[in-house]
Amino acid sequence: MTVSDRWLLPDGVEDILPPLAGRIESLRRDVMDTCQRWGYQLVIPPLIEYLESLFTGTGHDLELQTFKLTDQLTGRMMGLRADMTPQAARIDAHTLGQEGITRLCYAGHVLHTRPRHMLTGRTPIQAGCELFGSGSEAADLEIISLMLETLRVAGLPRVHLDLAHVSIYESLIKDAGFDRDTEAAVFDAMGRKSVPELDDLLGDCAEGSAGARLKDLARVNGGINALADARQVLAGASPAVDVALDQLGRVADLLARDFPEVSLGFDFCELRGYNYHTGLVFAVYVPGYGDAVAKGGRYDAIGSDFGRARPATGFSLDIRALVALGQRPFRQSGAIWAPADEDNALEGVISGLRMTETVIRALPGDEVTSPLARGCDRQLVNRGGEWVVEAIQ
Amino acid sequence: MTVSDRWLLPDGVEDILPPLAGRIESLRRDVMDTCQRWGYQLVIPPLIEYLESLFTGTGHDLELQTFKLTDQLTGRMMGLRADMTPQAARIDAHTLGQEGITRLCYAGHVLHTRPRHMLTGRTPIQAGCELFGSGSEAADLEIISLMLETLRVAGLPRVHLDLAHVSIYESLIKDAGFDRDTEAAVFDAMGRKSVPELDDLLGDCAEGSAGARLKDLARVNGGINALADARQVLAGASPAVDVALDQLGRVADLLARDFPEVSLGFDFCELRGYNYHTGLVFAVYVPGYGDAVAKGGRYDAIGSDFGRARPATGFSLDIRALVALGQRPFRQSGAIWAPADEDNALEGVISGLRMTETVIRALPGDEVTSPLARGCDRQLVNRGGEWVVEAIQ
Repeated sequence: MTVSDRWLLPDGVEDILPPLAGRIESLRRDVMDTCQRWGYQLVIPPLIEYLESLFTGTGHDLELQTFKLTDQLTGRMMGLRADMTPQAARIDAHTLGQEGITRLCYAGHVLHTRPRHMLTGRTPIQAGCELFGSGSEAADLEIISLMLETLRVAGLPRVHLDLAHVSIYESLIKDAGFDRDTEAAVFDAMGRKSVPELDDLLGDCAEGSAGARLKDLARVNGGINALADARQVLAGASPAVDVALDQLGRVADLLARDFPEVSLGFDFCELRGYNYHTGLVFAVYVPGYGDAVAKGGRYDAIGSDFGRARPATGFSLDIRALVALGQRPFRQSGAIWAPADEDNALEGVISGLRMTETVIRALPGDEVTSPLARGCDRQLVNRGGEWVVEAIQ
Repeated sequence: MTVSDRWLLPDGVEDILPPLAGRIESLRRDVMDTCQRWGYQLVIPPLIEYLESLFTGTGHDLELQTFKLTDQLTGRMMGLRADMTPQAARIDAHTLGQEGITRLCYAGHVLHTRPRHMLTGRTPIQAGCELFGSGSEAADLEIISLMLETLRVAGLPRVHLDLAHVSIYESLIKDAGFDRDTEAAVFDAMGRKSVPELDDLLGDCAEGSAGARLKDLARVNGGINALADARQVLAGASPAVDVALDQLGRVADLLARDFPEVSLGFDFCELRGYNYHTGLVFAVYVPGYGDAVAKGGRYDAIGSDFGRARPATGFSLDIRALVALGQRPFRQSGAIWAPADEDNALEGVISGLRMTETVIRALPGDEVTSPLARGCDRQLVNRGGEWVVEAIQ
């Protein structure tokens, strides 16, 4: 192993340096403060858990994304969290066990075995909010509104929001009654919005059948008018589909009223992220970035897997990606350079200044670089026995 | 697997719930802000790295504490960081590569295969500062002063600080010329301050030999006067020992002047934590807690292992333990309860209040608990068409 090999970080793993680290910390705080002002209380779930609890209520995708470890104390398998939403659901269902509505927020690193996107790599900083105990549309709206508010805080006020509802696909695929292979192929093709593949797979389905509706639904995509097209394709499909379409319509209307700057659309090919979603789901996109910058939705089933049925909805986002994409102003405040002098008065002045200011003390070895290169715009100088702060010329 | 098994977290792993999570977040911010006001810039090192870089310049203890993973992209072994200090040294030596003095700070989870102490468990939240590029005593003093300042911020102004110097033991053990087994046994017995064992191991050493000095040194322990006793035991031992003793004396004098509320002592049995320390080392204790609440010291060798020799000193602490031990006031600010009414004026009032206040919106399902139980001390009510904030009776 040569010295230069020791320097290499694994792909998708990075050192975050100044000033980027400061921008990430600043956004992390502002996002958390925003969530707390909406009544969401901070929790810190653990980085590692037994696999059984990490995967309760979640799907196969999450298992593939999760690093596994052996617990040396028990010999059992543990995993490094790849998603904090199921952890919040476990905390709500088991650890807190509150009656009524519980609002939780969190921010922390998650780890993925493979990078999902270049910007986030394998160690995204996930932040999110989860609302437990209400199956109401008001709860869905609160979560979406708070998500849009945190994106505004991140310097992304003009975003595109796609709404979807997992009941639509689920109801159609159940009615279609395909064999398992066909169902998997349709799921895969829908997720990739591959119209030719769906034509191949579903071309033989009778007009008006669930299969034909799925095929036609893949063509309905895009803006706010897609809902009307979907209603046509899905007319008479099933009561569950009608309920879902009505809900999408109402939520879209209210969001259009409250967030006129947000572009709204529907995505009927959106299936379910980690397989735990059960109702209204949503994702936010910005131009030039292929992955969603924030996403979430309703997942009413995880709680019952932890022994306590609780309706739930929430959103999460990656702070690292938001800093890269957002237009958020970041002012690096200046600093004051202080000489190395051994002087009691100087010590007092520095202590006082450090209540509000950054003061960098000269040390042996500091000759190499100038205070300006260290970010100092002012310095402490002794004028007639008094220490005063002066601008550095 | 029964439902209740899924609820169990591994030993030494915990959910941090409200309001404790809020207290931890608050202290984390204040510690980081303090470090930044002293000129330390935030870095965010990665949670995972290749084992070779995690263990460069560090010792066997750290390897035992580190969880190992296989990188699915390359098949190479990675580790979950168990200590962030070597990561900061790598960033200074390789990633940043600045000339002159570099000051870095960080805060994040580290993971240990086994709990080191009940309070910290296996997932401590390590925060720390590292100063690179100065081998001066002024640098050691700055790091110790900043550590004591962060402990004051954490509500621990009156602490006990032990100073030590690894050169003393190293010089003696080298001069003693023991075989490997004896050396390991002496190292072990010194670390545990076991006077009887040392008497057994070193009883045959001639008066004035390095072995006899080691045996006598183990008896010199405790307060500020220990330095004089150590000088007697170590008189004429070696020039390196004299340099170390002189440095300990000067640093103790300056700290006694600047921090009269801190109790100072020396610990000549303190060897080196993770084997990377090379000079002055220190540890802070509070009554009733057996482990150090903060510790650090000089480690001038890690940089050269990364291909760039850099003198270095730093400290680190566990935010989770500090919150448990500190007497820090934490005021949970009140919140305002808002009704579910669909009213445009109400939306505007809530948005305005949320600039500075926590506002919790009523949702279907909220009948179960009262606003007071949710932490609300005020509520929004409609008085003659105006929304006003009133105290909850």
